[in-house]
Amino acid sequence: MNKVAIVGIGHTKFGRLEDKGLLDLLCEASLEAIEDSNTNDKDFDSVYVGAMSPGIFNQLSGIASALVDKISLIPAAADHIKNGPASGGSAVKAGFQAIASGMSELVLVVGGEKMTHITTPGYITSNVATLTHPEAERRHGVSLPSFAGMLTRTYLEKYNAELDWISDIAIKNHRNGALNPKAHFQRTIEDFMKSAIQKGKGNWQEVHDFLKDETTNPIIADPLRLFHICPISDGAAALVLCNADNAKQYCDTPIIISGIGQATDTHIIFEREDITTLKALRICSDQAYKMAKKAPADIDVAELHDAFEILEAVQSEDIGFFKKGEGAKAAHEGLTDIGGKIPINPSGGLKARGHPLGATGVAQVVELVWQLRGEAGKRQINGAKTGITCNFGGFGNNIISILVEKM
Amino acid sequence: MNKVAIVGIGHTKFGRLEDKGLLDLLCEASLEAIEDSNTNDKDFDSVYVGAMSPGIFNQLSGIASALVDKISLIPAAADHIKNGPASGGSAVKAGFQAIASGMSELVLVVGGEKMTHITTPGYITSNVATLTHPEAERRHGVSLPSFAGMLTRTYLEKYNAELDWISDIAIKNHRNGALNPKAHFQRTIEDFMKSAIQKGKGNWQEVHDFLKDETTNPIIADPLRLFHICPISDGAAALVLCNADNAKQYCDTPIIISGIGQATDTHIIFEREDITTLKALRICSDQAYKMAKKAPADIDVAELHDAFEILEAVQSEDIGFFKKGEGAKAAHEGLTDIGGKIPINPSGGLKARGHPLGATGVAQVVELVWQLRGEAGKRQINGAKTGITCNFGGFGNNIISILVEKM
Repeated sequence: MNKVAIVGIGHTKFGRLEDKGLLDLLCEASLEAIEDSNTNDKDFDSVYVGAMSPGIFNQLSGIASALVDKISLIPAAADHIKNGPASGGSAVKAGFQAIASGMSELVLVVGGEKMTHITTPGYITSNVATLTHPEAERRHGVSLPSFAGMLTRTYLEKYNAELDWISDIAIKNHRNGALNPKAHFQRTIEDFMKSAIQKGKGNWQEVHDFLKDETTNPIIADPLRLFHICPISDGAAALVLCNADNAKQYCDTPIIISGIGQATDTHIIFEREDITTLKALRICSDQAYKMAKKAPADIDVAELHDAFEILEAVQSEDIGFFKKGEGAKAAHEGLTDIGGKIPINPSGGLKARGHPLGATGVAQVVELVWQLRGEAGKRQINGAKTGITCNFGGFGNNIISILVEKM
Repeated sequence: MNKVAIVGIGHTKFGRLEDKGLLDLLCEASLEAIEDSNTNDKDFDSVYVGAMSPGIFNQLSGIASALVDKISLIPAAADHIKNGPASGGSAVKAGFQAIASGMSELVLVVGGEKMTHITTPGYITSNVATLTHPEAERRHGVSLPSFAGMLTRTYLEKYNAELDWISDIAIKNHRNGALNPKAHFQRTIEDFMKSAIQKGKGNWQEVHDFLKDETTNPIIADPLRLFHICPISDGAAALVLCNADNAKQYCDTPIIISGIGQATDTHIIFEREDITTLKALRICSDQAYKMAKKAPADIDVAELHDAFEILEAVQSEDIGFFKKGEGAKAAHEGLTDIGGKIPINPSGGLKARGHPLGATGVAQVVELVWQLRGEAGKRQINGAKTGITCNFGGFGNNIISILVEKM
């Protein structure tokens, strides 16, 4: 199997980007990654685009074909990979396999979504709800936020955890996001309070009182409130991948994709043995660790899929960092802070960086590349050499984990 | 690069399948392929689903995740590959790369679409038109049938060809489809005439007069009439792929995928040097021939993408069987009949087998496997050892060619 290196990265600003269409965003991230990789005059063999619903959100089919035309990569092969909110991770895996197989030498992977122009958030929630099981779940009105609410309640009861600890994950991610110029929200929770509390140094109790205020932080899916849930965002992120044998000609600090895993779980959530355990993540992260010959203890930084803040707690357990039921407490105790035992989501995660669905799985890898290159600025994790991601499709029924390390 | 073998095939009946949903069709084809391959008790590593618009047509996202659950292949990795009407071919390529890279040993590829429940054909045409360029084409009302009309007119004028010769392609494909129990239409054009003319032996002029009757064969996109254009169909087709080293344990007559190519062309058709030349097909079939160390003269049977009958003529040239401008005449002269110099679309093609968008690229390969195994019944091409496909995305801006041969 050919080794695969990341030699270029691109990342648009995430947020409410009113002037840009989906193709504009894909182009911007792609061209930035190509520029970053010094492959401007090289022939790309293939292009993989990860996006969840450009047909429904943007009336665009064939976006991969449209992209190669717009950035002049014709006649490169082009495909659009769909795996719900894990479409980005699946696109990275497709690009990886193109090079690992020897079918391609130079590949562009880009993930993106344009969603904020849709004025009815309910339309987006309904569309995302098509990921649930049509008969067992959707027809009863179950949506992804409601699953997250149920998961939170079960987790808190089963492991004797506190909702405040879940809020602490949001607080940490907003604190990290405030250090990420590409994040949707570059504001801490304290900033949001617009109170007299000094930035970044709010009294813990005061912040949590703010987070329990129904006016500023209404309940979305009991017990989850607005600040426990990621925003709707626009954005795109891109990678240039090549056969690692040629990496040094494009980049001084290539990063190797040394492990990739992907696994599915039951479509109907009720059929899982334990709703608080993400079996697919256990399997796919295990695949990634084995392939890279690493263990959880070897990881310096992780980007997890906190579409709902409870998910970061659960994922931090199932990916092997903490024992079952201890993830939320670990976050509360600061173990997942930058500078903590295992920093999680230094980018701000989905909560603060934002969650343009198809972009997320690629943006997670871009953040790890910044960290491993030592280019992460104020949110740099010193000496980071190895990172892992969790990109979460459906409600945990299709998860991808990508392990990267310095060459 | 690991060699890849096809060890199982599945193919639902194509047509107006009122009692079946998209997932039912994907399951049916998948289970048939698994049964055919004797891999029932084996672990599949990954599943690739090719489908163009299940989100819009069927309100289903995450269909790959849903499929692995429904046919009990959890925790196999699952992805949905989109490339417009070439989604099936792209899914085959994704499955090929999964095995060629060594990431997977046993893979299920399935393509399908459920469309006939949509009562407004205009809704489908509008959705398919999202493949065209939004500013340069779609906003002016250009749809895929109108491009096919323009292409036909240009071709006829440029190469001094006859519209009747294009009709001859439809006549041939309906004749072949009548021999294919899985085809949408198992009727010859003569059957459609419901005339006194003896089946399959109609007077050429009488048949062509029928095809010029505005009542029975109305103009859709001048000069193309109803019978020059494929139907809207439901259906699915599936392949089981494995590392060729293990093929004999699953199948007595494995078929090797020895070449795959994929290439893009300009999104805006006006920007092409010559509308009658499919540059992407020239490039991708060349890639497939080179990879397999074959030439057009080595091919015994081809499955081309006759969504519009003009396309079969043009593709038969650009894939290397005939000189430019001679494809329609060759069909008229019977060179592409079963028993002819190079039989094209013995399955009946998109015209008669039908065109459930995402299914087509996989169904083309299934037909070639039947032919190479010698299991094609009344439409068998004697001694066929090598076959090639053209699966056509957008209006020729993303084409895939797959070359298969006996092991």
